[in-house]
Amino acid sequence: MDMPGADRLAIVPDLAALARRLFDELRDAHHDGVGITRETYAAGESSAMRRIEAVARRAGLRCAWDAAANLCITAPGANPALPAAACGSHLDSVPQGGNFDGAAGVIAGLIALMHAARDPLRARTLHLFVLRGEESAWYGRPYLGSSALFGLFDRDWMRLPNLRDPGLTLADAMRREGADLAPITARQRLVDPARLSHFVELHIEQGPVMVARKVPVGLVSGIRGNHRHPAARALGEAAHSGAVPRWLRRDAVLGAADFAMRLDATWRTLLERGEDLVMTFGIFGTDPREHAMTRVPGEVRFSLEWRSESQATLDAFAQLAHAEAAEIGRERGVRIDLGPGVRTPPAAMDPRLLAQGRAICEAAGIPHEVLASGAGHDAAIFANAGVPSAMVFVRNEHGSHNPHEAMEFDDFLAGAALLRDLLLTGAEAIGR
Amino acid sequence: MDMPGADRLAIVPDLAALARRLFDELRDAHHDGVGITRETYAAGESSAMRRIEAVARRAGLRCAWDAAANLCITAPGANPALPAAACGSHLDSVPQGGNFDGAAGVIAGLIALMHAARDPLRARTLHLFVLRGEESAWYGRPYLGSSALFGLFDRDWMRLPNLRDPGLTLADAMRREGADLAPITARQRLVDPARLSHFVELHIEQGPVMVARKVPVGLVSGIRGNHRHPAARALGEAAHSGAVPRWLRRDAVLGAADFAMRLDATWRTLLERGEDLVMTFGIFGTDPREHAMTRVPGEVRFSLEWRSESQATLDAFAQLAHAEAAEIGRERGVRIDLGPGVRTPPAAMDPRLLAQGRAICEAAGIPHEVLASGAGHDAAIFANAGVPSAMVFVRNEHGSHNPHEAMEFDDFLAGAALLRDLLLTGAEAIGR
Repeated sequence: MDMPGADRLAIVPDLAALARRLFDELRDAHHDGVGITRETYAAGESSAMRRIEAVARRAGLRCAWDAAANLCITAPGANPALPAAACGSHLDSVPQGGNFDGAAGVIAGLIALMHAARDPLRARTLHLFVLRGEESAWYGRPYLGSSALFGLFDRDWMRLPNLRDPGLTLADAMRREGADLAPITARQRLVDPARLSHFVELHIEQGPVMVARKVPVGLVSGIRGNHRHPAARALGEAAHSGAVPRWLRRDAVLGAADFAMRLDATWRTLLERGEDLVMTFGIFGTDPREHAMTRVPGEVRFSLEWRSESQATLDAFAQLAHAEAAEIGRERGVRIDLGPGVRTPPAAMDPRLLAQGRAICEAAGIPHEVLASGAGHDAAIFANAGVPSAMVFVRNEHGSHNPHEAMEFDDFLAGAALLRDLLLTGAEAIGR
Repeated sequence: MDMPGADRLAIVPDLAALARRLFDELRDAHHDGVGITRETYAAGESSAMRRIEAVARRAGLRCAWDAAANLCITAPGANPALPAAACGSHLDSVPQGGNFDGAAGVIAGLIALMHAARDPLRARTLHLFVLRGEESAWYGRPYLGSSALFGLFDRDWMRLPNLRDPGLTLADAMRREGADLAPITARQRLVDPARLSHFVELHIEQGPVMVARKVPVGLVSGIRGNHRHPAARALGEAAHSGAVPRWLRRDAVLGAADFAMRLDATWRTLLERGEDLVMTFGIFGTDPREHAMTRVPGEVRFSLEWRSESQATLDAFAQLAHAEAAEIGRERGVRIDLGPGVRTPPAAMDPRLLAQGRAICEAAGIPHEVLASGAGHDAAIFANAGVPSAMVFVRNEHGSHNPHEAMEFDDFLAGAALLRDLLLTGAEAIGR
């Protein structure tokens, strides 16, 4: 097998050509007139998976479908006692999405296994997991396939209606695409995490950092967890905008704006201390049924989300947010009620795999960046199930979940080579 | 005539009883099940005006209807060469409003004229103007009757549709209630401002200041003008809430919140310098068609209004607002676009009449407060037409334009006595 050397990370020409062809085929097959649509547990996702299966079988790789109708592609190694090295990603898209979110990781994994299979002396078995339902756009829940893999599929999800076809439940759709629901609802593991040495996922970056920094590949330090308050409120008192002086007002817009500015200042301070954090008031507004230009607003409804790689930072920000809310109440007579909260823990990427990834890039002279993943990924499920995990990001303009995803093919090839080399050398780097 | 002395301002018992009876009659006649509804240029307003006319005629006062169908009640004085002293207010209400907004000023004026008419030696003629259409709730424009009085009625208003009965235009409604549209559209003055010595209007306070300060009567220093921006926007860039770091965001909510906080700080500073100002972001929010908890908001739409008694303060705040908007653009990459603005000039109350009002209160030992009127009033039209004007406010809980207006009758009597004495002594105080 070729290892990173003084040259840039490289993919052999026939596999590069295959990757390019597969991207084109997937785009042609699933263009909906606006963007790319591959619905999970439906024809779009399944036909893409069967196309990958066909290529893998022709290359002599083994293919198996599990109870959740995930596809597992295997390049068996000479020593089956060694835990297998794994990679993977998903093939579903959001409606009118882009061609690369998910598919880039599957195609990179496929050419990694095809490359490795050419080495007759390889000891370790390799897996590519082509996972179902990573996007929450179809049934409101992400990570369906990877959750099933580790016995983490909540049986209540079976009853979730398709968001665009409410007569169809997730259970119906899964059965239709060949899933066997009994082991899933019994929360049986479909794979033993102890039998995997490590997991690597390649994905396009969904933010603008790598474009801004001008680096083709990134290594993910961790996948951010979050705290979410979808239905927060600022409660003041409505009043006549002309006749009520400042000292008698309880203005909900000014209370909520003050809260946002205090949290923005706290955010900036935490960033200056080197902590990882993003914060968003995505929904924010007075009530159109009762607001008016000449009425002091009595209520603002807003959502608040913060994300961090660090559970400690998530918790510290929660405390600071509650303290600032109490201050607004005292100073402005406006009660900030964050309402019910939802928490998702962060997933740490393995620091030894991260160091190995950096060493590969440095040896090959590839500019790279270490960054947090703000979006969730199947790799977080693997990591939290106990499989040491890594993620490779590929530069991508215009974000994801839209038809304007723009990944340069050369960047993809550099990322795919990095994925391949992390897949092949990662187990040794962490001593498994 | 009785003048303020060491005793509290007083109304003779039979006129106090008449006032109480008139409030009760108006309430009974115009209760709509929820609140009080007296539609302008319609049966509600006209029947209330005719009830006032009947009482005035029985008391020997002269009554005349002008081309705008305003009612002018007159107590002729012995010396017709003197300019007449005038008071007045309106009898229309908002839909489901309260019984006192407008009516209190008309009833106070009526008992003032009835009181004065008992003095056979009185030289100066007195007028009570019972004015049409002060509320904008019916045709979208306030001050219809007082504007007509001074030739300020815009002919375009004739075509305004009734907001609750769009088949009916204001012209139709005016004709139906006996108005003669020709002189109105020709912008002929129906009264010569030089023939009025001064104008006094009593009105319930529409804000909470007098309740908070525990004073029964107030004297208005000026009627606030305003600058309004009904369709302002903060324009940033939508982005993934998890994947975009702070340094690459152009968050419209944080930009708009920053703008609101900067203007709030400016407001506080101007108040500390003794300037008169109120400021309101009544409408404020992200777009429900595109906002989401996990999306950095790209746009916020908001309204912004500020009011002041002082044109200089209105203009200074406009400059500061534009400067802060430019700062937000530089610091946050969020463009604050205030959009088209609408300006209404303030109306100064006559400082000599204000001083006379304070002297009357002080001589009578009545606690009082000098305050700006945040809402507009017919008195602003008189003042800006060149008639020295004053306003007496009466304490009122729960604001106006709602069924919960709560004016104590004793507070009304104190205010009515102050109105009467300002009507009778104001001309001498200003040398007309």
